[in-house]
Amino acid sequence: MSDYHIDGQTFDSSVGWVETRYAEFDSLPLDSGLTLAPLTLAFETYGTLNDERSNAILLLHALSGDAHAAGFHEGDSKPGWWDMMVGAGRAFDTDKYFMICSNVIGGCRGSSGPSTTDPATGRPYGLRFPVVTVPDMVRAQKLLLEHLGIERLLTVTGGSMGGMQALEWVTTYPEMVASVIPIASTHRHSPMQIAFNEVGRQAIMRDTNWRGGDYYEHDHPDAGLSVARMIGHVTYLSDESMHFKFGRRLRGKEVLGYDFTTDFEVESYLRYQGDVFIRRFDANTYLYITKALDYFDLADGHGTVVEALREVPADTRFLVIAFSSDWLYPPYQSKEIVRALKGNGLDTTYVEIHSTFGHDAFLVETDQQTHVIKHFLEVTAHREARRRA
Amino acid sequence: MSDYHIDGQTFDSSVGWVETRYAEFDSLPLDSGLTLAPLTLAFETYGTLNDERSNAILLLHALSGDAHAAGFHEGDSKPGWWDMMVGAGRAFDTDKYFMICSNVIGGCRGSSGPSTTDPATGRPYGLRFPVVTVPDMVRAQKLLLEHLGIERLLTVTGGSMGGMQALEWVTTYPEMVASVIPIASTHRHSPMQIAFNEVGRQAIMRDTNWRGGDYYEHDHPDAGLSVARMIGHVTYLSDESMHFKFGRRLRGKEVLGYDFTTDFEVESYLRYQGDVFIRRFDANTYLYITKALDYFDLADGHGTVVEALREVPADTRFLVIAFSSDWLYPPYQSKEIVRALKGNGLDTTYVEIHSTFGHDAFLVETDQQTHVIKHFLEVTAHREARRRA
Repeated sequence: MSDYHIDGQTFDSSVGWVETRYAEFDSLPLDSGLTLAPLTLAFETYGTLNDERSNAILLLHALSGDAHAAGFHEGDSKPGWWDMMVGAGRAFDTDKYFMICSNVIGGCRGSSGPSTTDPATGRPYGLRFPVVTVPDMVRAQKLLLEHLGIERLLTVTGGSMGGMQALEWVTTYPEMVASVIPIASTHRHSPMQIAFNEVGRQAIMRDTNWRGGDYYEHDHPDAGLSVARMIGHVTYLSDESMHFKFGRRLRGKEVLGYDFTTDFEVESYLRYQGDVFIRRFDANTYLYITKALDYFDLADGHGTVVEALREVPADTRFLVIAFSSDWLYPPYQSKEIVRALKGNGLDTTYVEIHSTFGHDAFLVETDQQTHVIKHFLEVTAHREARRRA
Repeated sequence: MSDYHIDGQTFDSSVGWVETRYAEFDSLPLDSGLTLAPLTLAFETYGTLNDERSNAILLLHALSGDAHAAGFHEGDSKPGWWDMMVGAGRAFDTDKYFMICSNVIGGCRGSSGPSTTDPATGRPYGLRFPVVTVPDMVRAQKLLLEHLGIERLLTVTGGSMGGMQALEWVTTYPEMVASVIPIASTHRHSPMQIAFNEVGRQAIMRDTNWRGGDYYEHDHPDAGLSVARMIGHVTYLSDESMHFKFGRRLRGKEVLGYDFTTDFEVESYLRYQGDVFIRRFDANTYLYITKALDYFDLADGHGTVVEALREVPADTRFLVIAFSSDWLYPPYQSKEIVRALKGNGLDTTYVEIHSTFGHDAFLVETDQQTHVIKHFLEVTAHREARRRA
């Protein structure tokens, strides 16, 4: 693996330059009863699939993530969203494992979603795109694995919505999964999580530019989408991290402005996050993905979450990670997952990482996650080797 | 006191039918260096001022409150915002005390604010209304007390922003205040509190109907204001109260809708709260009052919060109340107030009420608040009587 130099820094363990690839499928039946046809999935892979096809790991992204988890796209100065976790010697060691990450259906980063052209009309779907669920996302990923010729995964993992998909994976395809690492996640969306998402959706849908979702040939609902993103960002931080990061420091002024320009650094941060988000994200996708999150309840169709996990083989390993200051997906929700797993006698390790970073911790607490995940993967790979022998 | 019957219920301890009154003043110098002239303050009073003028209590309202704290306006079926706390035999016993509540300046419920006619132009001020601060609100209330001939208050009290005003009162006019009851409040706005307010402001200011604040002769920025209110409501509840109040219950359907109509009860609740708010509240006032909150730091001009309280007489009594599930104004902020008071050797009682209602608890946890406040007021009144003797 060669060295990568960007802005004077050396990224000698980076997966380096990467490209997004696209897989096409005829159709996918959805939970809503509708069928999505055709279907494109954007994906990236890092590392090399071994001859036994036994070293594949499926990495699943969160609400605003995409297939570009690691490395650099041509011309970019910033790497993928989990770059510090994926590379040679990193938590997900690409010298050992073959990593796959795909953009979810309903997304706007290469996979089929509301901004995709509807073959029936030749125009973007808009709200005519069918509503998708977390199980639908998982069934789409199953098509991708078949396409790649992978029959069993060493691990499925992801943070936030990625963790929900990982849990859905092991309940839907229990025989395909050797281990699962849900991070900063939940087995079902709580009313408070639904509430924050609903406010974001209302910000978009009440923007006059939204036009019932048919805005692609006009001005986009940038105001609504940026407000939705600002709400999100407040929930991703913590009271403590905001004290540390911003305090009551003023932005570009010595004294209060006594007007409605920016006074505080935290205001500037939020406005910036809102403004950059609209350049890379589609407002309708925000509606679809938050709705999929809100619909998510692992118990659906099973009665209880314990029942949902009943078919999981006894030798499946689980590593459940939560962060102490995460109040959007609080540790108690991860503990509920752990209880349901232990209720099925499953091999479960729970790690609550002390962090002040709130929900964002799963993206930034690299060292502590690396420590536990690396060891967990080594043991899992060892057991899988014995299983095959 | 007569009985009041509304919707079949008897309100025999209610203050009954009340009217908002208005006081006019020439001018008020503001923290910004500007002067507001003229100035109207809307206010209500309940109970009777005694001959010694020693039983007056100033009640201060929160962000969306107004002068109408108790009793019923002609034709209304709902009482004022703290009705269960103010009346004969209630926590603030109107058989004993004379209660005064005024709408803050910058407001939209009768006091001068951005929707008031600017005498210089004959049109609503809009953003030409000067920015106001919590100390400005307090100086306006001082004018009202002079108007009413009241030189000393038995208590100043209020929840949330009302508590901030109460703290400001005792630092600005320490000789006028026998006791202070700040409830679910803070001595300064934290970056997270600023952040939630800023998102609400951005929702309003990015609404195309806002027009830089000059919307009074056009469509109002209802979309932005309702989204701001929805954000507020999520922060007023708690994870626990939302589980209890809504859970994942569906609204008016047996199964998920797989569309963007309302699915969950919590969504319906938020949309309703947003929609009713725009009928009674002005979007520009939302900007002004949230800005005053964000500017609030009791230490301003004093160095530290301990220094800010240095001039408070040693016999001033404090009752600081917080609620266990309030994550918008968490108990640790009330404890910081308590530490600063004790740092000045002041007579301070701290009560943390166990409640699942989040920040809303100060409006709904009547029984527990009544218990501690009633006793506190009796002791304060007794000491005041001795003081005068």
